[in-house]
Amino acid sequence: MRQHTSVAVIGAGPAGLLLGHILHQAGVPFVILERTSREHLLGRIRAGVLEQGSVDTVAALGLDRNLRTHGMEHRGIYLQYEGERVHLDFKDLVGRTVTVYGQQPLVRDILEEHERIGSTIVFNADNVTPHGITGDEPTITWSVDGVQHQISADFVVGADGYHGVCRRSAPDGRMTAIERDYPFAWLGILADVPPSTDELIYALHPDGFAMHSMRSHEVSRLYLQVDPDESIDGWSDERIWSELQGRMGIPEWTLQEGVITEKSITPMRSFVVSELNVGRMFLVGDAGHIVPPTGAKGLNSAIADVVMLGRALLEHRAGNSAGLAAYSDRALSRQWKVQHFSQWMTEMLHVHREVPDPSARDFRYRSQVAQLEYVSGSIHARRSLAEQYAGLPLD
Amino acid sequence: MRQHTSVAVIGAGPAGLLLGHILHQAGVPFVILERTSREHLLGRIRAGVLEQGSVDTVAALGLDRNLRTHGMEHRGIYLQYEGERVHLDFKDLVGRTVTVYGQQPLVRDILEEHERIGSTIVFNADNVTPHGITGDEPTITWSVDGVQHQISADFVVGADGYHGVCRRSAPDGRMTAIERDYPFAWLGILADVPPSTDELIYALHPDGFAMHSMRSHEVSRLYLQVDPDESIDGWSDERIWSELQGRMGIPEWTLQEGVITEKSITPMRSFVVSELNVGRMFLVGDAGHIVPPTGAKGLNSAIADVVMLGRALLEHRAGNSAGLAAYSDRALSRQWKVQHFSQWMTEMLHVHREVPDPSARDFRYRSQVAQLEYVSGSIHARRSLAEQYAGLPLD
Repeated sequence: MRQHTSVAVIGAGPAGLLLGHILHQAGVPFVILERTSREHLLGRIRAGVLEQGSVDTVAALGLDRNLRTHGMEHRGIYLQYEGERVHLDFKDLVGRTVTVYGQQPLVRDILEEHERIGSTIVFNADNVTPHGITGDEPTITWSVDGVQHQISADFVVGADGYHGVCRRSAPDGRMTAIERDYPFAWLGILADVPPSTDELIYALHPDGFAMHSMRSHEVSRLYLQVDPDESIDGWSDERIWSELQGRMGIPEWTLQEGVITEKSITPMRSFVVSELNVGRMFLVGDAGHIVPPTGAKGLNSAIADVVMLGRALLEHRAGNSAGLAAYSDRALSRQWKVQHFSQWMTEMLHVHREVPDPSARDFRYRSQVAQLEYVSGSIHARRSLAEQYAGLPLD
Repeated sequence: MRQHTSVAVIGAGPAGLLLGHILHQAGVPFVILERTSREHLLGRIRAGVLEQGSVDTVAALGLDRNLRTHGMEHRGIYLQYEGERVHLDFKDLVGRTVTVYGQQPLVRDILEEHERIGSTIVFNADNVTPHGITGDEPTITWSVDGVQHQISADFVVGADGYHGVCRRSAPDGRMTAIERDYPFAWLGILADVPPSTDELIYALHPDGFAMHSMRSHEVSRLYLQVDPDESIDGWSDERIWSELQGRMGIPEWTLQEGVITEKSITPMRSFVVSELNVGRMFLVGDAGHIVPPTGAKGLNSAIADVVMLGRALLEHRAGNSAGLAAYSDRALSRQWKVQHFSQWMTEMLHVHREVPDPSARDFRYRSQVAQLEYVSGSIHARRSLAEQYAGLPLD
């Protein structure tokens, strides 16, 4: 039997799942195909800071019941350097806030609502492959337990991440990768201990960047700058806490330690695809771009894409294709600004151990301290950081 | 005969000469010792953009007669990228302006006033050497035409530039250099042609940075980014104009060409000394710091130092030494912010040809374009640039 849908979404991460709800609200048929299992999907620990616009998007789709209850609205962040901890109050500065809520519970919320409304989500789909994306009716093939499946669609949405198949299905020379590696990695831990801070702390220290984030009132998330080639085996729990104490400690403040339940090292990368649209295929989220984690823009960028693409798909059904034609340029224009912000935050806060000359390395560190002093001291610079951290407009 | 003065200033550049007038106004005895000739001093072509605070300083010393007549007050600058030329109006953004007036006429104005009031300025002083700066009464020795001279002083001021003797006279491990080289140089020209623009244009182009500045209504000053190891011999006048036309050209605007009267290539460097004060010796201007030229901070930083040090020296005579003790920290705190700004402007506007990987190079360029789009589009970012370009507070 020949199967057809309007939108075939590849990937059931937050981007694909959210897009499904936008389509569902407008009555647009869709299927979501996911390579991994439901359990795997719900087990992934990822980002945890939502821009105001991301929260608004989730709320507008009626998916914010748990977010409202368990999300922690933060007015701003702390910047720490040279023993100073300075609070930036985004609410005062630009009238917006951010909300700490893990990607893991967010994906659960969105997925469970899909299951309640009976959306078609195929898990464990092997060898998902888009065909004919430059033609009038692309198809997707996949198999489950060795059984081949196929569906045709009006549009294919690649929400399948950096390693996904969609970008690689574009014709040669299209959707090429523009990338930058950083000489930094983050060692991240989850610990069963109430956060020692009310809002996130970003700290520059001569020994390296450190950060205090959180997942809930009971679970802390902390990060240390390490070299990209370091192994987690070299980092005992003791060493991690000792390094966190050293880099984050300031007088009259105590970093509470707790049982570490998860630890891993993640290298940093900036990646942007040259275009988010070829023929009838559109990329969203990590399939189209990756940011270094400083500034928490990964999940928020995916949501921004989905809002723009969702609107364009609905306009197309109403007879106006201008939004679809403009999607790639508009989303990439925003994304490049987000890339610059993430790179700016990253370079301001990490110790440039990669600079070989000691004097040049010292210069770099001191100019970062001066930058932090300037950013902390200037109302214009604080507002510029705040408007970007709390989120640039969605179009 | 034993000679003594209150302040011995080494170097008759704008910093040393201006400090002389501050001391003169307060009736403080001083001498200025200059290695080069009067003609050489008046022949040097240097910076040409004065911050509001620099103009105010010159005016407060009564040295602004020609500056008022011939200086060109600019409300802002143009940023150019991807064929767009965007005006930033500092006056609207932060209520301040900058004034284009060459260092060359400024030095002449200040020097001629010294000559009118009969200040002691020794030109062609060979082997100027400070002694005993950590003691109670330092001395300076020098020779003119082979005749040895000596003077003792309460204080020695090193206004003798990056290559000067003062910094090198500090004890081992003091006044050390913190430096950063850039993979860029500027090819600068003076041309006998009225400027093709009312205010300065800073342009990022895939072929490299270009800039249109000016010295007067009749003389244009233009710059091209070149590699630091390039020779001026490879740059015919024809090639220079052709490259300027290519990098600066936008529709409905014409870059007028004229006779090139001066051309040279200058590499870029950031340099800050670890401290501006040892014992009774204080450094000002290029003796203590060098910035890359993007953002025009060199001369302005020298004037900022002189204002701070002048005030501290006068306070000291009134019995309060706190300002002298704090001078180094205060001047360096401002200077490091200026270093960061100069580095930020430089990196935003120059093409990073030194990045070996083509994808990473492409990433860099696109993120600079995004940065320029963000800076041009955000009121907070525009104000942040404007307040730094028009000049941070003098203390």
